[in-house]
Amino acid sequence: MNYQKILENIYLDIRPYEKMGRQADYIPALAAVNPDQFGICIHTLRNDIYALGQADTRFSVQSISKVFSLAYCMSIIGDDVWKRMGKEPSGTAFNSLIQLEIEKGRPRNPFINAGAIVMADILLSRLDNPKEQYLRFLRSMSGNDTIGYNETVAISERSQGYLNAAIANMLKYYHNIDNDIEDVLQFYFLTCSVEMSCRELSRAFLAFADHHKPFSFGDVRLTASQVKRINAIMQTCGFYDEAGEFSYLVGLPGKSGVGGGIAAVYPSRYSVAVWSPRLNDKGNSVMGMKALELLTTETEESIF
Amino acid sequence: MNYQKILENIYLDIRPYEKMGRQADYIPALAAVNPDQFGICIHTLRNDIYALGQADTRFSVQSISKVFSLAYCMSIIGDDVWKRMGKEPSGTAFNSLIQLEIEKGRPRNPFINAGAIVMADILLSRLDNPKEQYLRFLRSMSGNDTIGYNETVAISERSQGYLNAAIANMLKYYHNIDNDIEDVLQFYFLTCSVEMSCRELSRAFLAFADHHKPFSFGDVRLTASQVKRINAIMQTCGFYDEAGEFSYLVGLPGKSGVGGGIAAVYPSRYSVAVWSPRLNDKGNSVMGMKALELLTTETEESIF
Amino acid sequence: MNYQKILENIYLDIRPYEKMGRQADYIPALAAVNPDQFGICIHTLRNDIYALGQADTRFSVQSISKVFSLAYCMSIIGDDVWKRMGKEPSGTAFNSLIQLEIEKGRPRNPFINAGAIVMADILLSRLDNPKEQYLRFLRSMSGNDTIGYNETVAISERSQGYLNAAIANMLKYYHNIDNDIEDVLQFYFLTCSVEMSCRELSRAFLAFADHHKPFSFGDVRLTASQVKRINAIMQTCGFYDEAGEFSYLVGLPGKSGVGGGIAAVYPSRYSVAVWSPRLNDKGNSVMGMKALELLTTETEESIF
Amino acid sequence: MNYQKILENIYLDIRPYEKMGRQADYIPALAAVNPDQFGICIHTLRNDIYALGQADTRFSVQSISKVFSLAYCMSIIGDDVWKRMGKEPSGTAFNSLIQLEIEKGRPRNPFINAGAIVMADILLSRLDNPKEQYLRFLRSMSGNDTIGYNETVAISERSQGYLNAAIANMLKYYHNIDNDIEDVLQFYFLTCSVEMSCRELSRAFLAFADHHKPFSFGDVRLTASQVKRINAIMQTCGFYDEAGEFSYLVGLPGKSGVGGGIAAVYPSRYSVAVWSPRLNDKGNSVMGMKALELLTTETEESIF
Repeated sequence: MNYQKILENIYLDIRPYEKMGRQADYIPALAAVNPDQFGICIHTLRNDIYALGQADTRFSVQSISKVFSLAYCMSIIGDDVWKRMGKEPSGTAFNSLIQLEIEKGRPRNPFINAGAIVMADILLSRLDNPKEQYLRFLRSMSGNDTIGYNETVAISERSQGYLNAAIANMLKYYHNIDNDIEDVLQFYFLTCSVEMSCRELSRAFLAFADHHKPFSFGDVRLTASQVKRINAIMQTCGFYDEAGEFSYLVGLPGKSGVGGGIAAVYPSRYSVAVWSPRLNDKGNSVMGMKALELLTTETEESIF
Repeated sequence: MNYQKILENIYLDIRPYEKMGRQADYIPALAAVNPDQFGICIHTLRNDIYALGQADTRFSVQSISKVFSLAYCMSIIGDDVWKRMGKEPSGTAFNSLIQLEIEKGRPRNPFINAGAIVMADILLSRLDNPKEQYLRFLRSMSGNDTIGYNETVAISERSQGYLNAAIANMLKYYHNIDNDIEDVLQFYFLTCSVEMSCRELSRAFLAFADHHKPFSFGDVRLTASQVKRINAIMQTCGFYDEAGEFSYLVGLPGKSGVGGGIAAVYPSRYSVAVWSPRLNDKGNSVMGMKALELLTTETEESIF
Repeated sequence: MNYQKILENIYLDIRPYEKMGRQADYIPALAAVNPDQFGICIHTLRNDIYALGQADTRFSVQSISKVFSLAYCMSIIGDDVWKRMGKEPSGTAFNSLIQLEIEKGRPRNPFINAGAIVMADILLSRLDNPKEQYLRFLRSMSGNDTIGYNETVAISERSQGYLNAAIANMLKYYHNIDNDIEDVLQFYFLTCSVEMSCRELSRAFLAFADHHKPFSFGDVRLTASQVKRINAIMQTCGFYDEAGEFSYLVGLPGKSGVGGGIAAVYPSRYSVAVWSPRLNDKGNSVMGMKALELLTTETEESIF
Repeated sequence: MNYQKILENIYLDIRPYEKMGRQADYIPALAAVNPDQFGICIHTLRNDIYALGQADTRFSVQSISKVFSLAYCMSIIGDDVWKRMGKEPSGTAFNSLIQLEIEKGRPRNPFINAGAIVMADILLSRLDNPKEQYLRFLRSMSGNDTIGYNETVAISERSQGYLNAAIANMLKYYHNIDNDIEDVLQFYFLTCSVEMSCRELSRAFLAFADHHKPFSFGDVRLTASQVKRINAIMQTCGFYDEAGEFSYLVGLPGKSGVGGGIAAVYPSRYSVAVWSPRLNDKGNSVMGMKALELLTTETEESIF
């Protein structure tokens, strides 16, 4: 498959969408990003790499980090993760408290904010140096030791994070947070603040695409079955209330972030990361979604 | 892959579950079925067939027919289907009116009852002889001309179908049903009343597993892309509020019915149908779910 | 208190509101009413009557009949009414199914549609000739034997009454309707179709204002305590999701109807009926609400 | 009316209920209260006082303070209060976030926690010394300068107040809180921590029963119309999701607190306070509710 040629075609085809949508602007650091950027990078199991556009520009991975958190939590406590949250799609917006109240503090899945806040609580309880170990895991996965948190972004998000604070308080009320609420929120926002480029992100997601190789990054180890199940969660829950749409149009497991990034995997073939800051009204990258739709359409490759 | 051997192992391994759950009993015809039955049949793209247990006993396919309805509707009006309903998982029980009211009469997806009732309305409007043509399509897909409706079941379900009648009335209120409510409900229940065996059902689903062959059964024709997209909908919406669980444990697109049947596909490999009447509290077959979980675990084959 | 003078002042003061709001138009018979009408009539315990405007023009009482239905049901089965429904304000629109589903088919109170449909079911079960006896009761209360149903309106409402049919089906699903759904709906719409003038309606409501006299109209008899409790229900539930607003601005127990009528009582003093077809977005008469607010403000009389 | 005799009869009649229900125990200070206490005090407009039981024992007024907060807020900003919250009954539990999210941070009414937290924000913004001035107002209303906060209770409630913190964060998210969240919560819990006896509370509520006298307590002044409207809010919203039940059984405007107190008014006649710590499952005092029901039944006096 000539992926480079396909990427170039996609690049032309998505032009009409380049001014659609609006970037996230609820904190200054995200609002300051030039919205008119686009990067994409495919990383195959044979270690071929195909990149285009601003594939080396780092951006805030935001909710994409929820996949790393799930991998880390499953490596530590395995299926006990599901004692604290479900694995069903939410059917509502990513930050809704309604479902959380109806279901008495049990988040629908690990990829909505409530679930990720509980995962932050798990990591805080189980790791000796959560901040360092989490970063070490991400550096190991992406093969790049310069990856880091953007603490300014993390602090800025915390100061505006009223809805996440409401979620954390409700989780605490229902005894689904063990640590201090403030500690959990700060660690949660820190994990969201990680900055990676498409090239680094596709490399990091390669391990999810390739369950034939051992998933082993420092102290984080998963079985092939666990890797496949993380993909399954991405498939059903990776795009908030647009998971069905993404599954329908793209047909790959993936996870989006409000920074405009999307990481996806085609199991046993490749991983791919795409980035463009302008978001649709569901909070997913307009050009990112379109590029991935075109990718699986043109290659006629999808999990279905 | 020695599927026959694997099926035999599965058959032993699911024994401990054989008395778990309860069959549907809301109408006499379903309540009268012997609950202690189990059948399974795999149909590969090479046309190898592996069967075990009561694989030739016919049962009420019930909601599995929603997949056939979607295929039929897409062949007639294509993506216009999505003007009438969404393609997102519902996050709530299959027959909830809450979501339908909040979303003003637009069903979440085609595989909840509200969506299937709208599809019944579409078929009634578009087909000259809906009852005959629908059956002809199913007979063509399953390669068996003796397949038929069980009209006693259909009438019995209609007479007890208060919740579906509530749904149909609400759809009508929001102008999402064109035909007479009673006609739509009767046709909807008729499509649910079709009886097929695991062998017939796996044969019928083969066309969803094999998008490389033309999908063409009488007047029903779909593109490869459409077939894949129907699989995507099965993946995210096929098991009501247990879609995530099935995706996690089994990792195949599929659809369950309250009669105890489940049909699933492993794209480009095989289709599979399993049947056992006892249901879990989500309305899905206990042994059917377990058998499929063991199948993808033992074969180490899943879409992820 | 010079009520006639006060009514005249009110008549002047409400002029600025005379073109605000829109009359109900979901059935032709209601849409055909001249919207620019206003009538009001006060009936005191001393039998003084003060009328103004189109106080003798009959209109469709619609939901005001729910008060008569509650009186009838309580006279037959007393507090057993509350085994079938609650007496709490609904906090949502009058025809919402959401609450009904969450609360498993138990209507919030007798003055939302679901509650009134259950009351229609009770009357159908308990009365020998429900249609005749209900009318006889209303004629007795209003002291006028020419009051009648408008069967054209009833039939027209039934034919468009999809949401009420959805409600009735859900009630049946939860075993909160004993009779045939269609019979219940037809009787429900019949009770709504009664036509009365402000003069007749205020006379009919006098018995709710005066619990010192025996409440006895043919076979319908209530204790003083029951009368007061019906007033309490009117106070908290009489105006759908505007009950608090009416209580705040007017301070009297009352009940509104989509035909533009409002009946209210000032216990131990008077009853009052007002009518004007233009409705606000909550479904209550704009000028009717305003007139009653002015009435209690100018007289400085309210239950608080 | 011989109220003393009636109180004595009530005292006998409520005996069978004396072990029903459970006191609030979510903080140690409330859990430590002897649950088997009962006090009641009626204060008439003629200044006759009728007391029985532990009418001079102080208890935590908790949510009853919401009435004082509303009075204070209305005296400062009048009907602008309703720009920040509604005046409709909530139809759900006092601390639900569901409605608050659906209605985008606008509390249903001032007597649910969300509304009272917004009122705390208003008072913090408008008063120079909120803590002192609020207490001064309560001392003035109850004619007793020894009334005070229980700061231990306030601190204890704050430390456990995860749900209220969730509410406050959601209000802030929707821009319905101006001050620092923590300041608002602390002041809110402080106002709840006020301790008063039935005698003091009935005296304080006398001003709500008597709108003919000027409502003037230090800098807090209300018109007769405002007093009556506060009563209207108590009537429709004073008992969380049991407002209809209280209105039905008792027929007086009132407000309950989780400390087991209830204050109510019979306009133009008397105010009454009752206290007994054991609560029903709606959070209202079992014996308190029963005593007030008997009071209006035996006296045959209610607003209806």
